[in-house]
Amino acid sequence: MSKPAVILLSGGLDSATTAAIARAEGFELAALSFDYGQRHRGELDASRRVAESLGVRRHVTLNIDLRQFGSSALTSAIDVPKGRTRAEMETGIPITYVPARNTVFLSFALGYAEVLGAADIFIGVNAVDYSGYPDCRPEYIAAFERMANLATKASVEGRLRFRIHTPLVQLTKAEIIRRGTKLGVDYSLTRSCYDPDPSGAGCGNCDACLLRLKGFAEAGLTDPAPYRK
Amino acid sequence: MSKPAVILLSGGLDSATTAAIARAEGFELAALSFDYGQRHRGELDASRRVAESLGVRRHVTLNIDLRQFGSSALTSAIDVPKGRTRAEMETGIPITYVPARNTVFLSFALGYAEVLGAADIFIGVNAVDYSGYPDCRPEYIAAFERMANLATKASVEGRLRFRIHTPLVQLTKAEIIRRGTKLGVDYSLTRSCYDPDPSGAGCGNCDACLLRLKGFAEAGLTDPAPYRK
Repeated sequence: MSKPAVILLSGGLDSATTAAIARAEGFELAALSFDYGQRHRGELDASRRVAESLGVRRHVTLNIDLRQFGSSALTSAIDVPKGRTRAEMETGIPITYVPARNTVFLSFALGYAEVLGAADIFIGVNAVDYSGYPDCRPEYIAAFERMANLATKASVEGRLRFRIHTPLVQLTKAEIIRRGTKLGVDYSLTRSCYDPDPSGAGCGNCDACLLRLKGFAEAGLTDPAPYRK
Repeated sequence: MSKPAVILLSGGLDSATTAAIARAEGFELAALSFDYGQRHRGELDASRRVAESLGVRRHVTLNIDLRQFGSSALTSAIDVPKGRTRAEMETGIPITYVPARNTVFLSFALGYAEVLGAADIFIGVNAVDYSGYPDCRPEYIAAFERMANLATKASVEGRLRFRIHTPLVQLTKAEIIRRGTKLGVDYSLTRSCYDPDPSGAGCGNCDACLLRLKGFAEAGLTDPAPYRK
């Protein structure tokens, strides 16, 4: 019998791979995506395609307008940095940081998991290839999990012991791509670019595109997603 | 010079008192309210009146549709329990529990606080008079605070050390009302009923009304909020 799990699905490469791993572990998936005014809104179409291709049972997209708080490149008009070297990317926290984003996302995932009776929550955070985001680190995830088990009726009454799964946290981008490819993830459906054109084609030059392309190259594979010529 | 703080403002008696306490401590307040499909939507009008009366500088109301997850009396058509005794109220977690509600609210407050450069977040939770909600307990708040300081750019870079203030946590309802009255809170502006009539008048008989009326009685005061005859 399959166990229910909630997965945060962005439409990117990492969350698609995480979903495939969760499915391979026997979980029946309910996916949660967010329309938070991100510039790269093609993500949401991608998340629907990915959910469908992976046989996700339920898929809820919540509208939350983080723009009311102001700031951050992913939701405002600040230019997305282009052509940065790995060393530049690894200096400090990127301006594409969105305040408390994973905390907000995981909080909704927790509520959804409690409603569904699911003890397991999957998130595709990664602390190896791009360690700039504080809310992608294992110590943050552990603190969230601890808080989650004090927060809810189901955990306090002993019916659910919530676990936040981060199967990608110690993998390189190339390892993630190899793992997903073995599990049959169709990466042509996923989108990663922070600054895509209206057709959804990637710029090939922002941090997300550069890391993704390098990952495919290191895995000895070709990225099937579209890029601008 | 006044320090900025974010306060979660529901329009009820507790959060209005919390705001008055924070203001008396010298904080300049930014208030955050949520339209989450609650039945008692008069709360939102009340939160605007309370914010105005307390000189709150900014007030953001976020729309988040928790109804997409289903369940709970505060957002669905389940009957709100009426006429319960204190002993009945204190048995288990009430059906008016909303999954992960304070976790979602505090997560948004954390993001807003980071954007504003505010280290202090106020929430009017109370663990004495009505201990049924797991996400009102001190151990939950402490775990959230710990997680918050691992979650954000501002805390990881050492610019902000977030603190979740719960000035009401150990007060009885009567003590809260006495404290707020001394600080000049106009309780006629606040609303607590889980099942108000269209004019906003309280039912006088749900758990929230019963606790509120008992609190005023024990404080030797009359509740100035409207009730159905």
